[in-house]
Amino acid sequence: MPLADAITKASKVDVLIIGAGPAGVMCANALAMAGVNVRIIDQRPVKVAAGQADGIQPRTIEVLQSYGLGERLLREANQMHMAAFYNPSPSGGIERTSRAPDVTAPSARYPFEVTLHQGAIEAIFLDSMEAHGVSVERPIVPTSIELSQSEEELKDVTLKHLNPAEHQGDSEIVKAKFVLGADGAHSWVRKSLGISMDGEQTDYIWGVVDMVPDTDFPDIRCKCAVHSNNGSCMIIPRECDLVRLYIQLSDRDVVDPATGRVDKSKMGPDKLLAVAQKSFKPFEISTSSPIDWWTLYIIGQRVASKFSVNERVFIAGDACHTHSPKAGQGMNASMNDTHNLAWKLAHVLRGWSDLSLLKTYEFERRKYAQDLIDFDKKFSKLFSGKPRTEENQDGVSHEEFLEAFQTFGLFTSGIGVHYEPSAITHNQHQSCASKLIVGERMVPHVFVRAADARPYDIQDVLPSDTRFKVLVFVGNIADSSQADRVRTLADEIGRPESFYHKYGHEAPSKVFDVLSIASAKKQDVDYTGATYAAQAPEQHWSKVLLDDTDMYARVGGGGYERYGIDAQRGAIVVVRPDGYVVIVAPFERLEDVHAYFGSFMVARS
Amino acid sequence: MPLADAITKASKVDVLIIGAGPAGVMCANALAMAGVNVRIIDQRPVKVAAGQADGIQPRTIEVLQSYGLGERLLREANQMHMAAFYNPSPSGGIERTSRAPDVTAPSARYPFEVTLHQGAIEAIFLDSMEAHGVSVERPIVPTSIELSQSEEELKDVTLKHLNPAEHQGDSEIVKAKFVLGADGAHSWVRKSLGISMDGEQTDYIWGVVDMVPDTDFPDIRCKCAVHSNNGSCMIIPRECDLVRLYIQLSDRDVVDPATGRVDKSKMGPDKLLAVAQKSFKPFEISTSSPIDWWTLYIIGQRVASKFSVNERVFIAGDACHTHSPKAGQGMNASMNDTHNLAWKLAHVLRGWSDLSLLKTYEFERRKYAQDLIDFDKKFSKLFSGKPRTEENQDGVSHEEFLEAFQTFGLFTSGIGVHYEPSAITHNQHQSCASKLIVGERMVPHVFVRAADARPYDIQDVLPSDTRFKVLVFVGNIADSSQADRVRTLADEIGRPESFYHKYGHEAPSKVFDVLSIASAKKQDVDYTGATYAAQAPEQHWSKVLLDDTDMYARVGGGGYERYGIDAQRGAIVVVRPDGYVVIVAPFERLEDVHAYFGSFMVARS
Repeated sequence: MPLADAITKASKVDVLIIGAGPAGVMCANALAMAGVNVRIIDQRPVKVAAGQADGIQPRTIEVLQSYGLGERLLREANQMHMAAFYNPSPSGGIERTSRAPDVTAPSARYPFEVTLHQGAIEAIFLDSMEAHGVSVERPIVPTSIELSQSEEELKDVTLKHLNPAEHQGDSEIVKAKFVLGADGAHSWVRKSLGISMDGEQTDYIWGVVDMVPDTDFPDIRCKCAVHSNNGSCMIIPRECDLVRLYIQLSDRDVVDPATGRVDKSKMGPDKLLAVAQKSFKPFEISTSSPIDWWTLYIIGQRVASKFSVNERVFIAGDACHTHSPKAGQGMNASMNDTHNLAWKLAHVLRGWSDLSLLKTYEFERRKYAQDLIDFDKKFSKLFSGKPRTEENQDGVSHEEFLEAFQTFGLFTSGIGVHYEPSAITHNQHQSCASKLIVGERMVPHVFVRAADARPYDIQDVLPSDTRFKVLVFVGNIADSSQADRVRTLADEIGRPESFYHKYGHEAPSKVFDVLSIASAKKQDVDYTGATYAAQAPEQHWSKVLLDDTDMYARVGGGGYERYGIDAQRGAIVVVRPDGYVVIVAPFERLEDVHAYFGSFMVARS
Repeated sequence: MPLADAITKASKVDVLIIGAGPAGVMCANALAMAGVNVRIIDQRPVKVAAGQADGIQPRTIEVLQSYGLGERLLREANQMHMAAFYNPSPSGGIERTSRAPDVTAPSARYPFEVTLHQGAIEAIFLDSMEAHGVSVERPIVPTSIELSQSEEELKDVTLKHLNPAEHQGDSEIVKAKFVLGADGAHSWVRKSLGISMDGEQTDYIWGVVDMVPDTDFPDIRCKCAVHSNNGSCMIIPRECDLVRLYIQLSDRDVVDPATGRVDKSKMGPDKLLAVAQKSFKPFEISTSSPIDWWTLYIIGQRVASKFSVNERVFIAGDACHTHSPKAGQGMNASMNDTHNLAWKLAHVLRGWSDLSLLKTYEFERRKYAQDLIDFDKKFSKLFSGKPRTEENQDGVSHEEFLEAFQTFGLFTSGIGVHYEPSAITHNQHQSCASKLIVGERMVPHVFVRAADARPYDIQDVLPSDTRFKVLVFVGNIADSSQADRVRTLADEIGRPESFYHKYGHEAPSKVFDVLSIASAKKQDVDYTGATYAAQAPEQHWSKVLLDDTDMYARVGGGGYERYGIDAQRGAIVVVRPDGYVVIVAPFERLEDVHAYFGSFMVARS
């Protein structure tokens, strides 16, 4: 019997992330950018090179952009703007029934999906993390986790280095204030904590193949839902001329009749392609290049019973929800889990917010995961079902499928995600900004800067920098009574007992960014004038925006109307660090804004 | 007497660039991207850190974007959208007369100027060059240049390494097929070749100071022309809250009465600021930070008598034209000189084009430089002149100045640059694309790709990759007679005697990129269908565009009308590698397109 591996090292860290997939790298990058003491480990010796998840939804593009990573994603990725639907034709084979926008979310800043292989997406985060001094340590596996009872609530996690040779077998004990298990569907963290997965496996069996096709199929560069009498197929175009096919399989193709289990040896990429070729008739599809990647899967639809233990150990991503990949949600759900969590960890670690803030992670993301499973059940059933034909009147009609595709669009795009009221989401005074729905992400819109008339999408002045954004829609400041109201508000925000000072740890501007947005026009206003008075305590020329067009009337204008805010009297809108509207209030109800922050923040000493 | 430095090395190179300023790095990067064997040397031990030129005009942004460098420029730079004009007020001091767009060029893709210090702009090129394996060698000075009479036309240039210690004093003889002198206003190359500068020095003396201002001046973040009775001043806002002031000086401030020459010791940044403060009254301007950079200059307005010797040695940038910096032209003129030259060098070096192609560099860029000096004379006079007031009825009125500002706008933006007819610019058949002016840059416009409905600005499918772009506007291919015409044209382009094969060295697609642009709508057309037939010999799904909106009707459509092309019958438009329209023709005059390429290209053997 060999001796136990030597414990060669003991260390402390604020956040230990286990797993460098989409959920892990989103969290590590966000914390690295925030200056949090974080480590991230992964059991794989190198990053993913091909295949895996590949679809990024409109809301996730907005999220990447909020970390300054949107441009690179858009440069490297393929864009899916158009969807096409194919159904059985009277003459046998398939025919196009219709084309439609790929995304049904009118307010999306990026009204399309992008596709890029998972490794390339992760690389965007890895490079950003590296610029902030954090790299993935690999290959390392956790071997034990112990929940400490001490005051400091440090966890003991034992890590084992697998490679390179000089470290092989070395073990290390890490005391972490917080641990994140982002270690995938077979999560070691989840299992170690005894968290169960609720839900079930379906009967749907699918194959996936990535290749550069030779084809006469006219919509090969669109997302296509192909329903044929020879099975269903979904097409997802990708970067570098690649196309991904999701191919419905029947039991007899892949299930071992003796055991009833999927037998991967019964299926290979060539056989998968042969199945697809039948459903594509009369179109031809083949490939003259090597297959880039392939896999088989049975859809499981499960959600973890809890996402956290004592708000000290968390799980995220595939570790807490598994579902069909065909709606392109997997990577998005995972990244948005930790986009939700990261700023909360930073606030608690800095002592700005109470530990209870972290309860909202499970509250918000478990609800989302359950909605996702519900959607997936409906969509998978429609997608895997037989098409309606003359002979099969019980099948799924095109109209039924298209309606579902579009109804679900707001959800699948991520734009419709809605967080319910909680300590950090106060559903009050909605009527004073009737189209900025509390609990939903801040609606993108172009405003111009008062000082230089440069147009900005408002999302670009709300970066994911862990600060709360206090948007003071100052209304018509050309009117003297309104200008008085604005001055009064600015005075109130400036008082020592106001949220701005009471919770403004270190310096108020580290916790809060206050912006003024006037309904006045650029020819009538100076940033040094009336708007500046609204500028609450911190003043910088860049912090005053106008609801007006740019100098060439190409973009901008109409923002107050789009947000449902009174152009005369304005409103206060608070956006939390991850970009969600959390309270709106008229000027007279500033006390509710104070109370909002008081419900989870710690007063400065 | 010391011994002569040892000649330690002899080498060959295709292009030797002397000077790593804006003209030099633009050329080196373009050649590096084209895979040309190029070296670039500079006498400065490190790159520029602050100050110098800083304004990038709309056309230059388009040019940077054509090399894939536009995004980074826009991310790092300040944008100037608005201009403001100040004149003497009746109560003494100055007041704002009006605001206007900073750029008067309706077709500009980027309708604003950007400002960023020269070192940061050069760094964008240095990083791109490095990614293509080329770095600036420094500090190195050329010490002799000899024009060889040999067949190969190699030049002997002797270089002296100044540093680091291990190379100090080492000399090297370089045989270069082509030499570019991009070595500034005091160009060693120009002087060594005995090229004279024509023109004269003005009496205008100006100071420049870069600083972060403390001010109540409401347009400090706009470009401002301030005309006061205490002198003129121009404001150029910059990155990182910096502002540049150009300050008019009178002789007595800076001229040594004994010698009549500028004495820099008589003026410093504090004194410059004191002069500015007088013209800003009643506004206050000062700074609490250290001055970032400052200088004095007397405007010289000169153009080199020639830009080349035997089309083997060239000069570019400040080496061949000097003028006032206040119109923000300097760096732009320099970069556009070598943007014009680089692809021509690549074509000649590859044996694709005759040496005579290089004559068009001087033809096109010297004409531009002369136009620039003419503009600068008028503008400097207006700007340096006294404002018109009650007392001074001979002064420059605001109306006169504003009209000049806007009239010159098309020229100063770079959008209006027009190359006259030559071997590479055939001014024929203009009426078949009446708004794509032969000799001017290709007008940006958004089209959608037929295969996936993704919108693209057409400039982004015309990168500076040394290829000629043949845009076949295929018209209404839903009409069968037009579809027949398109097929006939495609057949003709595919014949061995066509330009495509006759001048298609190595592979035709290395020299030419053929794109089809249909007036049909995305719901009616497949990329595999009729448009594909127009796709001449090379076929890829990405090469078919449509004049239509994207799926959400946010961008695109109206392109045929904007270009003045018949939506039914179409036209052929050829864009040269640097983005200028060089011939337009109806389908029936394909022979003129053959003749166009025959006028400077070498037939493949």
